[in-house]
Amino acid sequence: MTKEKIYTAALIIIGDEILSGRTQDKNTAYIAEKLNMQGVRLKEVRVISDDKQKIIDTVSELRDTDNGGHDYVFTTGGIGPTHDDITTESIAEAFGMELELSATAYAALLSYYKDESEITESRKKMAMIPKGAKLVDNPVSGAPGINIENVYIFAGVPRIMQSMFDAVAPTLQGGKPMVAKSVTADLAESHVADGLAEIQLRYPDIAIGSYPQYKNGRFGTCLVLRGIDEAAMNASTQEVVDLVKSLGEENPVIA
Amino acid sequence: MTKEKIYTAALIIIGDEILSGRTQDKNTAYIAEKLNMQGVRLKEVRVISDDKQKIIDTVSELRDTDNGGHDYVFTTGGIGPTHDDITTESIAEAFGMELELSATAYAALLSYYKDESEITESRKKMAMIPKGAKLVDNPVSGAPGINIENVYIFAGVPRIMQSMFDAVAPTLQGGKPMVAKSVTADLAESHVADGLAEIQLRYPDIAIGSYPQYKNGRFGTCLVLRGIDEAAMNASTQEVVDLVKSLGEENPVIA
Repeated sequence: MTKEKIYTAALIIIGDEILSGRTQDKNTAYIAEKLNMQGVRLKEVRVISDDKQKIIDTVSELRDTDNGGHDYVFTTGGIGPTHDDITTESIAEAFGMELELSATAYAALLSYYKDESEITESRKKMAMIPKGAKLVDNPVSGAPGINIENVYIFAGVPRIMQSMFDAVAPTLQGGKPMVAKSVTADLAESHVADGLAEIQLRYPDIAIGSYPQYKNGRFGTCLVLRGIDEAAMNASTQEVVDLVKSLGEENPVIA
Repeated sequence: MTKEKIYTAALIIIGDEILSGRTQDKNTAYIAEKLNMQGVRLKEVRVISDDKQKIIDTVSELRDTDNGGHDYVFTTGGIGPTHDDITTESIAEAFGMELELSATAYAALLSYYKDESEITESRKKMAMIPKGAKLVDNPVSGAPGINIENVYIFAGVPRIMQSMFDAVAPTLQGGKPMVAKSVTADLAESHVADGLAEIQLRYPDIAIGSYPQYKNGRFGTCLVLRGIDEAAMNASTQEVVDLVKSLGEENPVIA
């Protein structure tokens, strides 16, 4: 049996607002979950500042599938009308592409702003698209996302990013989605560690993660199993349930 | 006047739970804000999976100050007792260091677990420390963090990570902290873009960011100014306030 190709993706979050701690990123979880439904695994996230060379280097590295890069690279942030929005021009440079006014993008802006006199130079910038790139529809605020080869340039505002992601999701090629199950027990993770390691050895194709939780002054543990094969998932989950029961957890939460 | 050195840091979040979208990272904001108070800027965050070679490569790259790396590198996650906790052994390998049982770390575990019979092989793993590394006190759960040169290895659980971070924060050398001010207006960011770009040109040492917000079906904008020089901060903030007022915002929120 040939091993199935595993499709992977990276996410680049561009912007000083996350790095300064002001804003909490909300895009990673959305993209991770939706990608998984397409059978694509999010393997790496990078948060970088609005720095042209940094954007160029990061996109070039992560999209290079021949050298440890990923099948898909998504960026969020920095495609708006203000001076600190430099994502599009930076990625165009990474691809050696010129920016040009896109008639389609301009029409979308016009449809949103209603009147040509409202399309200021700053707003027009959002219709300057790398020559030959594909546009990603933005039903929320007019300015489109951009797709160049395996790179997808999205807005940073979660509501807009989500609509852009949903527009391209069906076009992404992926493998089988990972299934996840979790077993949560009121036991310290050091208590389950030995038994868990043995289960992991018996199921090499299931990734078993152990995540300590601290609630109400006590440590508990969430054990997460991820895999593609349903039979192996069911069997390994049952073994984890048996393990925590044998250690004294009477009512593990299975989800 | 000599330009002051700017101290920078990178954060590496290690673990599949963030990449799968299950868990929302809460450590970035804490570290970013606390670092800024020490005069250190968080310049990059990477979220990577529990993969030995990936951990080695990422730590080695980001800590290399001669090649675009940072003065400080912090890692969170993967230092617990279970089979998927491979951060310590991976970073030891990145430094070419052997692991050895640390008497101090073992004593801390013993003090936490009370009885030697409770120190299972899995728990003992948390006292296996790279030879010559410094320990970072963990008053919450016994197992220490680790410091090797400019790399700090912390737990992933926010409460534990925070206590470890707070223990080392006073020892970090930094410059002047950045001061941030924000001006929030009920205006689309494309509306303020032209005027804002002019203000940015007049204050090259103040970083002005524009962050669109979407609330109650309307777009607003949060304009954030960051800098070290108080006079320039005050003057540029006033100009931004004047700008949004000239565009029709009667009551900008200044914070």
